[in-house]
Amino acid sequence: MIMPFQRHPQFELDSRFICDLSLCEVRLSNNAAFPWIILIPRLPHLIEMIDLSPAHATLLYEEILHASRVMKQLLTPTKLNIANLGNIISQLHVHIVARFSTDLAWPQPIWNSGIVKHYDPSEQTAFIERLANALQRI
Amino acid sequence: MIMPFQRHPQFELDSRFICDLSLCEVRLSNNAAFPWIILIPRLPHLIEMIDLSPAHATLLYEEILHASRVMKQLLTPTKLNIANLGNIISQLHVHIVARFSTDLAWPQPIWNSGIVKHYDPSEQTAFIERLANALQRI
Repeated sequence: MIMPFQRHPQFELDSRFICDLSLCEVRLSNNAAFPWIILIPRLPHLIEMIDLSPAHATLLYEEILHASRVMKQLLTPTKLNIANLGNIISQLHVHIVARFSTDLAWPQPIWNSGIVKHYDPSEQTAFIERLANALQRI
Repeated sequence: MIMPFQRHPQFELDSRFICDLSLCEVRLSNNAAFPWIILIPRLPHLIEMIDLSPAHATLLYEEILHASRVMKQLLTPTKLNIANLGNIISQLHVHIVARFSTDLAWPQPIWNSGIVKHYDPSEQTAFIERLANALQRI
């Protein structure tokens, strides 16, 4: 990628870097209540998925499906939740969340649940390593 | 499609048929607070997007992008919200919602907002016709 990529500063407050895929930076939400990753295409000036070129749109979808398979295999959730919202941070990003029928927000969506749990730092680092290894094993 | 397709009965209570695309049935949510369509692949036994064959997954994405462009062109929303949740109705379906900075739930997601407005029946029918025309003009 030779075009400049700048992530919205809120992403750095709310999440930690996991790894780069071909198109997207993948980050882990700092909210330990939900295994929750975020894919951010490393391209400037994107708001909507339909802003992507056809080739980049295809790549984004491949990475969404790949990351979904990884979350499913690692965590065996009850259901995956996949969403592009962007009402608060408009920069294009896609949430992939492993939901469990036992989680604190089930069956409601997580986004305005008000439920936040802090990761133990070493547990978060270990989870990031586990996700990075699985995501990069394509 | 020669395989039997059965939509979960809740879809018939919560939404009205707009049109069929190659893969998906498209429906309009009965909630007039948000211009909100739902794409349901007309294939049996699907829960996750990763349950689709590669060809059907591609087709679903093409239809998501197509329907997103239609919603953008017809309604010029502040932001599109696109989501596969399925925590309550697990049958695979994708929400596409035209969000406005003036809508009643902004900037929160719509799904557990508790905000419901009833369509005037003739307005809903007119909106469905407008959407069906635009969606089928590929």
